[in-house]
Amino acid sequence: MSEEFIQSRQNPRVKALQKLQDRAGRRKLGLFAIEGLRELSRAVETIEVDEIYFCPEFFKSEGHSAFVDKIRAEGRIELCRLSEGAFEKVSNREGCDGLLGVAKQWGGQLADIALDEAKNALILVADGIEKPGNLGALMRSADALGADALVITNPVSDIFNPAVIRASQGAFFSVQTAVSTPAEVSYWLKQHNISAYGAHLGAQKFLWQADLKSPVAIVMGCEKDGLGEDWSLLLDQRIKIPMSGMSDSMNVNVAAAVCLYEALRQRRGGA
Amino acid sequence: MSEEFIQSRQNPRVKALQKLQDRAGRRKLGLFAIEGLRELSRAVETIEVDEIYFCPEFFKSEGHSAFVDKIRAEGRIELCRLSEGAFEKVSNREGCDGLLGVAKQWGGQLADIALDEAKNALILVADGIEKPGNLGALMRSADALGADALVITNPVSDIFNPAVIRASQGAFFSVQTAVSTPAEVSYWLKQHNISAYGAHLGAQKFLWQADLKSPVAIVMGCEKDGLGEDWSLLLDQRIKIPMSGMSDSMNVNVAAAVCLYEALRQRRGGA
Repeated sequence: MSEEFIQSRQNPRVKALQKLQDRAGRRKLGLFAIEGLRELSRAVETIEVDEIYFCPEFFKSEGHSAFVDKIRAEGRIELCRLSEGAFEKVSNREGCDGLLGVAKQWGGQLADIALDEAKNALILVADGIEKPGNLGALMRSADALGADALVITNPVSDIFNPAVIRASQGAFFSVQTAVSTPAEVSYWLKQHNISAYGAHLGAQKFLWQADLKSPVAIVMGCEKDGLGEDWSLLLDQRIKIPMSGMSDSMNVNVAAAVCLYEALRQRRGGA
Repeated sequence: MSEEFIQSRQNPRVKALQKLQDRAGRRKLGLFAIEGLRELSRAVETIEVDEIYFCPEFFKSEGHSAFVDKIRAEGRIELCRLSEGAFEKVSNREGCDGLLGVAKQWGGQLADIALDEAKNALILVADGIEKPGNLGALMRSADALGADALVITNPVSDIFNPAVIRASQGAFFSVQTAVSTPAEVSYWLKQHNISAYGAHLGAQKFLWQADLKSPVAIVMGCEKDGLGEDWSLLLDQRIKIPMSGMSDSMNVNVAAAVCLYEALRQRRGGA
């Protein structure tokens, strides 16, 4: 495959790449950017990456050149070299490492989530999460603690935001993710006989008193306001994590991880 | 109390405040800065704040003026108004809110930690944590999940770093904190009959199989390298959190919160 070397910051491909830095541009093009060796390595293993842009002047390790050499040898992804000036223009990171891939956005439809029939479903639902970093952290925890999918309702940032991908530390490419409305999610859960348990400070039942062995979705609200009103009609049960101390809230990702851990504990037969 | 109004960015007090932005300056003066209404409100309730600097032009709510009025009425903390230019120079935040307090650093000695004789101790030990944000998040989790103290070994950032205070969301002022060496901490734990359990991916025992009802310290390693070698000789037991997914690690704060939750569950009689 022939490789282009773009040196001008005014090149139309550079300008198109720049548009991927904001949500409107990403949506219009139906594409998103994946920056950094770790993220891109994970991406090429799990999704279809259309193009990879590189700038050897920014490479931070031998692993970076080795990665490009491997992609070149495989010949299935188009490579394009950028000058330092051009790469700086398309990069969204301070201290970039000279690697940026482009891939097509996917639908994030509930119907696309594949549930393993052999085990009881464990779904994490995140409602109204504001910070992209929290969304990425939730993906990481969902991945590490064995949730089948992360379902997002009332999102504030889009999942293709570079900060989401970065905070997920690669889990973005392995966790099944869907975005929908609380009503649609609730209906989908019912279709699959999955109960919806809402994390709520005012709940009577402690987390460990709930049956999390059965198919269950843990519904977490945003940090500031807790679970949104539209979810309150749709829950089968409310559960609470015991809290002490002066803080009046727990980080949403910490709370989600504690709930997923409790499900795992019950399922693995922890007494 | 008479109130000074400093308009010059070159004022010696402004220059001294600026020094609190880096570790060497903080240590030399033995002071640290507390920025923001939420943090400062928590601080005046729990520690001795020496001075409060304010700039009404940056206030973001009526709560900000009300806070200054209250401090003025109480008359125990010195107030000093700064011009916009001067405040910008001393502020460490993007989008500052015009409030900054100064307080004396404390020792952070193990001997100063007060343990409640009426309950079994639950201590969180964090080893080699790099990011100030993680240190603050650990304080928040320790506070919310009822740990008696956060003990820090091999610290990379100092606990008076503004990013620690910010990430702790106020828990900085309520959680007992000490900084020491692994050997000293281990000796202190033995003195108080507290077992040291290290979180380790290679452990045989799952977290829920460990007895966390007895007095216990959970020792967490840094994100990148796990628990440091100097701790490995000092542990009574290793425990692991089950992990699945593609990620090979969990955020250190998430892992710590899961361990503290498990202790809480066992102590509250969760089956």
